[in-house]
Amino acid sequence: MSAYTYQSLRDEAYEANMEIPRRGLAIYTWGNVSAFDPDKGIFAIKPSGVAYDKLRPELLVVLDLDGNVADGKYNPSSDMETHRVLYRSFSGIRGITHTHSTYAVAWAQARKAVPVFGTTHADHGAGEIPCTEIMDEEAVKNNYELETGNLIVNTFRKQGKDPLHMPMILVAGHGPFTWGDSAAKSVYHGAVLEEVCRMALLTLSLNPEAAPLPEHIIHKHWERKHGPNAYYGQK
Amino acid sequence: MSAYTYQSLRDEAYEANMEIPRRGLAIYTWGNVSAFDPDKGIFAIKPSGVAYDKLRPELLVVLDLDGNVADGKYNPSSDMETHRVLYRSFSGIRGITHTHSTYAVAWAQARKAVPVFGTTHADHGAGEIPCTEIMDEEAVKNNYELETGNLIVNTFRKQGKDPLHMPMILVAGHGPFTWGDSAAKSVYHGAVLEEVCRMALLTLSLNPEAAPLPEHIIHKHWERKHGPNAYYGQK
Amino acid sequence: MSAYTYQSLRDEAYEANMEIPRRGLAIYTWGNVSAFDPDKGIFAIKPSGVAYDKLRPELLVVLDLDGNVADGKYNPSSDMETHRVLYRSFSGIRGITHTHSTYAVAWAQARKAVPVFGTTHADHGAGEIPCTEIMDEEAVKNNYELETGNLIVNTFRKQGKDPLHMPMILVAGHGPFTWGDSAAKSVYHGAVLEEVCRMALLTLSLNPEAAPLPEHIIHKHWERKHGPNAYYGQK
Amino acid sequence: MSAYTYQSLRDEAYEANMEIPRRGLAIYTWGNVSAFDPDKGIFAIKPSGVAYDKLRPELLVVLDLDGNVADGKYNPSSDMETHRVLYRSFSGIRGITHTHSTYAVAWAQARKAVPVFGTTHADHGAGEIPCTEIMDEEAVKNNYELETGNLIVNTFRKQGKDPLHMPMILVAGHGPFTWGDSAAKSVYHGAVLEEVCRMALLTLSLNPEAAPLPEHIIHKHWERKHGPNAYYGQK
Repeated sequence: MSAYTYQSLRDEAYEANMEIPRRGLAIYTWGNVSAFDPDKGIFAIKPSGVAYDKLRPELLVVLDLDGNVADGKYNPSSDMETHRVLYRSFSGIRGITHTHSTYAVAWAQARKAVPVFGTTHADHGAGEIPCTEIMDEEAVKNNYELETGNLIVNTFRKQGKDPLHMPMILVAGHGPFTWGDSAAKSVYHGAVLEEVCRMALLTLSLNPEAAPLPEHIIHKHWERKHGPNAYYGQK
Repeated sequence: MSAYTYQSLRDEAYEANMEIPRRGLAIYTWGNVSAFDPDKGIFAIKPSGVAYDKLRPELLVVLDLDGNVADGKYNPSSDMETHRVLYRSFSGIRGITHTHSTYAVAWAQARKAVPVFGTTHADHGAGEIPCTEIMDEEAVKNNYELETGNLIVNTFRKQGKDPLHMPMILVAGHGPFTWGDSAAKSVYHGAVLEEVCRMALLTLSLNPEAAPLPEHIIHKHWERKHGPNAYYGQK
Repeated sequence: MSAYTYQSLRDEAYEANMEIPRRGLAIYTWGNVSAFDPDKGIFAIKPSGVAYDKLRPELLVVLDLDGNVADGKYNPSSDMETHRVLYRSFSGIRGITHTHSTYAVAWAQARKAVPVFGTTHADHGAGEIPCTEIMDEEAVKNNYELETGNLIVNTFRKQGKDPLHMPMILVAGHGPFTWGDSAAKSVYHGAVLEEVCRMALLTLSLNPEAAPLPEHIIHKHWERKHGPNAYYGQK
Repeated sequence: MSAYTYQSLRDEAYEANMEIPRRGLAIYTWGNVSAFDPDKGIFAIKPSGVAYDKLRPELLVVLDLDGNVADGKYNPSSDMETHRVLYRSFSGIRGITHTHSTYAVAWAQARKAVPVFGTTHADHGAGEIPCTEIMDEEAVKNNYELETGNLIVNTFRKQGKDPLHMPMILVAGHGPFTWGDSAAKSVYHGAVLEEVCRMALLTLSLNPEAAPLPEHIIHKHWERKHGPNAYYGQK
């Protein structure tokens, strides 16, 4: 049985949302984080258009995976539709973060996947960080935010990527979505992505022909943190 | 009848002026915000050359649309002339902000309009952010600050732009002016413009051939926030 | 007669020195400001190698224009020699600031004068910001810091520049020196220079062929702040 | 006899570790500093994967130069192996810092040594800042972190560099390691390296053909701070 109550789910999502302004990942009301309880199939998300300095846990909205409000008096973030598609499709994730962080947006606007130039990147994701294609007109007219979720899921399928090994993506012309095994981890990945995008842009500024890390180092860094014999951190 | 008093107009303009240093949009005394009461035809503006940490509401100057001081003991910002031209010409706006924010100035100095590279931009303005031409010698000699207002108004007229749909402009070789339905909204647009300019510069650094967003996504983002069926935020 | 005491001169220089870390113009012990009393022919300067968070007014060193210590127990900044050459040669200045601020150093290292790309620049200096040549081997062996002063003075003479109209210079391969009619004004010019250098670099990143402002706007901005009919600020 | 106790060594390393977040040299748990007692042949280092805001002196791990824990209950940073190789090989150093600071990582990812473009650099290191080669597959499979130490030592040997005259290196595709005669000095060098890397990148952005400082100025700046007749700072 689930250990989550509406309140504890809201608290977890609230704390993770407040990391967005603390880490400088978005200004004003931009961005949102949700926390997911897979047992009950519900998630708590930021209300739409509320500034971070006005946010309180009780303002967060609890929804089921069909997008119906389970608890809460406010409109959920319009990106709620994207979140629920990802929770349905990416088994094992329990938190999602969307920001408009500057360097991640720049890569999304340049419509480029981020090559693995260094170990900061390799420590956090297996391979280059994907960038979707631009959404076509029909999808935009249908249900834009839900189709954003589908675009993300289809990009992972087409590229054969595992969302548990690559917890981040750039939506072309828009910005980043990141996830993790908790709301806190998803916003951690949002901050990591911003820093990796900044480092990669500066790398290309110094050397437009910069080569990606060779596979043996990429593999090593992933394994030492995430493999079966991982030895990073405390037991 | 107008609900504004001199005091309340000053308070509103004061609060918005203080957002300039808080948001890092200018240093020292650079920049200014005004708040406008369309019923009485008066606006409150920052005094000239006063540093933000010395600013208090009672130092602000209240002027009519002819530039006559209605109340206040200080010299108004010399940009007062630009503000009154915009209040006369752009019906519906109630606040104006001028800053020297770094990336907006860089685009103004490069004398380039900012293309719509992403949804951060599309959420806040319909189409590219215009940049004026360089003011000619005669206009500079006439009344420089008033002619800056005329230059802005003429650029909007020539390009057929609606100031309620595009609340920002770059004055070539100078910097940004932004506006909104309140003083607070005008400085919000000043901060948005700075962030959009930074994202756009970085996008071009990654991809000098970066393409603007297709029209169907630009349209969607504007409509979901500002159209008749807008669904962003709380009711 | 001079209104300055050793104490008041130290206090003024101390306050201006503390603006360096507050404005982010240098880290650790880098940079120094002095305050000059032209009547007594003495100036107070930061001691050598003392971190800003350890600095107190009584640690500052008071020197005459021959570089003799008039009062104080510490070694003066080794750049003291540069300061005294400037006080001797640039009549009318009462404060000097040297920093290693990032963007100003980048221009100095690129060995390029900063073109007048916009009004932020034109408000503070008449014409492009000069950059010296690289100091030759003989001068370096002679008295390096004193020769840095000579290099600055000679650059102004060769280019026919007036130090009261252009209160800043880049020493090639080193960094900025700025001055003004007070120690506070000299560090203000240090902060302005950093911002102007940052804006100019970003301008070139957007448009490598960016044109300088036309002369009629440069002239206007200088005159409205510094000319005989200046109308900026309070009386 | 050594004046260090486990506690004093931990305290010194703790203070230096806390400079990493204060100076913005890494986020979350990234980076680590150690302090070395050459008499006892032991060093104290940050535990693995602990965030800076959770760090306390008693969490640090004390190890001998074979990598055996002398005191402490936590897993040491996995980079401990790199540190012990450097303490063994670079006689005279007493502190080591590893960060993922943004601009230093960009140069490491671009796999470029940093040329001496200015005096900020010349004040702190003799000659260009080296960048290692990419580690080969066999070394990675052997003992990755220990081989990182060997890579650094071998790069210094091949280039004939003296670690007491060049207290910093970039590990290709990874990031910076810096050292000094104390833990505090090693993290000082970490901050200097980040600033020097940022200045050098911006210099190349302004002038891709920027020339290094001539040898007579490089020599002068090193000598005035570090030579037998150094005159910078207080006695």
